[in-house]
Amino acid sequence: MTEYIPPGTRFIELPSPFPMKRGGRLAGGRIAYETWGRRNAAGDNSVLILPGLSPDAHAAANGDNPAPGWWEAMLGPGKAIDTDRWHVVCVNPLGSCKGSSGPASIDPATGEPWRIAFPDVSIEDVADAAAHVVRALGIERLACVVGNSMGGMAALALLARHPGIARSHVNVSGAARALPFSIAIRSLQRECIRLDPHWNGGNYDQAGYPETGMRIARKLGVITYRSALEWDGRFGRVRLDSDRRDDDDPFGLEFEVESYLEAQARRFVRNFDPNCYLYLSRSMDWFVIGESCGGTTAEGLARIRLERALAIGVHTDILFPLQQQEEIADGLRAGGADSQLLPLESPQGHDAFLVDFDRFSPAIGGFLAAL
Amino acid sequence: MTEYIPPGTRFIELPSPFPMKRGGRLAGGRIAYETWGRRNAAGDNSVLILPGLSPDAHAAANGDNPAPGWWEAMLGPGKAIDTDRWHVVCVNPLGSCKGSSGPASIDPATGEPWRIAFPDVSIEDVADAAAHVVRALGIERLACVVGNSMGGMAALALLARHPGIARSHVNVSGAARALPFSIAIRSLQRECIRLDPHWNGGNYDQAGYPETGMRIARKLGVITYRSALEWDGRFGRVRLDSDRRDDDDPFGLEFEVESYLEAQARRFVRNFDPNCYLYLSRSMDWFVIGESCGGTTAEGLARIRLERALAIGVHTDILFPLQQQEEIADGLRAGGADSQLLPLESPQGHDAFLVDFDRFSPAIGGFLAAL
Repeated sequence: MTEYIPPGTRFIELPSPFPMKRGGRLAGGRIAYETWGRRNAAGDNSVLILPGLSPDAHAAANGDNPAPGWWEAMLGPGKAIDTDRWHVVCVNPLGSCKGSSGPASIDPATGEPWRIAFPDVSIEDVADAAAHVVRALGIERLACVVGNSMGGMAALALLARHPGIARSHVNVSGAARALPFSIAIRSLQRECIRLDPHWNGGNYDQAGYPETGMRIARKLGVITYRSALEWDGRFGRVRLDSDRRDDDDPFGLEFEVESYLEAQARRFVRNFDPNCYLYLSRSMDWFVIGESCGGTTAEGLARIRLERALAIGVHTDILFPLQQQEEIADGLRAGGADSQLLPLESPQGHDAFLVDFDRFSPAIGGFLAAL
Repeated sequence: MTEYIPPGTRFIELPSPFPMKRGGRLAGGRIAYETWGRRNAAGDNSVLILPGLSPDAHAAANGDNPAPGWWEAMLGPGKAIDTDRWHVVCVNPLGSCKGSSGPASIDPATGEPWRIAFPDVSIEDVADAAAHVVRALGIERLACVVGNSMGGMAALALLARHPGIARSHVNVSGAARALPFSIAIRSLQRECIRLDPHWNGGNYDQAGYPETGMRIARKLGVITYRSALEWDGRFGRVRLDSDRRDDDDPFGLEFEVESYLEAQARRFVRNFDPNCYLYLSRSMDWFVIGESCGGTTAEGLARIRLERALAIGVHTDILFPLQQQEEIADGLRAGGADSQLLPLESPQGHDAFLVDFDRFSPAIGGFLAAL
């Protein structure tokens, strides 16, 4: 049970207790964040980034931590999210293990990790906690909120529950509601973790750790974050050299793509807390914007007030398919925003925004430059 | 360790030993098949069906077994594969547990199940065994070979390795080579089975059976056989009634789609032998037509001689994506066949050929009617 907090992370205390959508009592909670750039005199140049399930708040190098961040190519002086112009805040989601309070954090009432006694986390809670950070930093109105994947869900909840909090929005491979196909995949990932005897109802430690369950869940994640098209070009049918194979195992790794998956999974397994993974995964299944705004998904989206919006999607995304970004763009337009859908031809599937900067940088940079 | 053989299944003994592509000795092997319709006087009206990984030879009701088969809507008098006109043979793949020899069969040399001592099964072996059945039935030349999914791979191997065995070919959601994305999915399914302690290196029995591994593997299969589009219409975000939920399990089943997956998995788990599943799954990963025909995939396909060919694919198929059927159609055309690609708008993904008869019946029926 470990939290993995990058050096230089800053924190803002949440109101205690912090009201949670599905009930339960969260006392002594906090949210981890980082910032880049400076606020201007008018106080109207702040951009909020809401990341996906697993990233921390360290989106890029900054004065507090010069190590490259998970969106290093996108964020910095002269980059798409230009920190010479914008004051940027990135918030680690409530429920995570990367600094914000979650199941891996210590419950101040007991001095022990919360584990699965942590209150249920919904996307709306992630949004409310982010809104608290925005207010606590003295930001009256964001120039833009950028949300990726799960963060795209949280951004919509933020806009719906905190009217006027932002002038504009970029939704990157997000969704206004969880689809059953994605629910099925996430449900299976959670089942793999829960079936690992080491999960033990959430009561594991580093010695007895649900490593196998996490490894399988992550492999399934990596498969659904990418696409058949990309991997054909990247791995083809290349086999592992004999010295990288276990000839005693008739069903052992044989192809490069299997070795890649294994390496991806091993890198993740000990760097994300299994209970936090279960919580945030489930929060996505529960999400449907109508619960924040009322009505159908389209009606819910149409109640959000924005000046401009951009929904970016990728043809090869099977987890948050392009129809979902189309739904967002259409819904926000119906609410009065100058709202566009930008479908990209990236081969990399759902994760394209983390790798395909040739397409995503001009898309996001162009939107922000025109604000 | 059980074989599941439908009543009325017929058998043809394989030459003993039967030469296997990757070596090993298969003595006393047999292939299960069923037939429909009658051979005409010219002996030129036989159609061979090569099914996917899991089906048995009982594609439809017949005199030996009146129970509906897995392709009942497609096969029968007046149906797309019209048994008033065609003499139809369906073969259970070598390596299966539905009547053909495989890891669940008894090794005549020991009187015990083969388990993982069964020789490696490749798609080429599946094809050669099917060719032996065709010859043993006295069929000189097939009017058509229809191959679905894994059977589409086997059909291409059959055509490549047994020149002149068929005049025409319908490839249904098949592939001329395994792509890394599909390899990754199958590899993960196999890993789930092998990680189950009850798998025990293949030495399980009905009491100690790798049920969990099979259940997870099947859920992953069902997810990748279908599509986001279909499930949105079919399940939406409908939740289970409270009496179908376990309120004591905070991560238990909550949505209809999760319950559907669970039911699908439970139905499969005890009806397909885990070792056979591992063998046939791996045979697909190994398959690339160039190993039968020589050269690249395109060159390999172009060496196949056919009068007519049809490759049918589905836009929503993520396991055998449409580009693979396009590759087949183009390759067979380069070999001189009158070869067409027929992309269908089925929402059901890879499994559409098992359910979307409104689209598949006219497609296959039209091709056969014009022969």
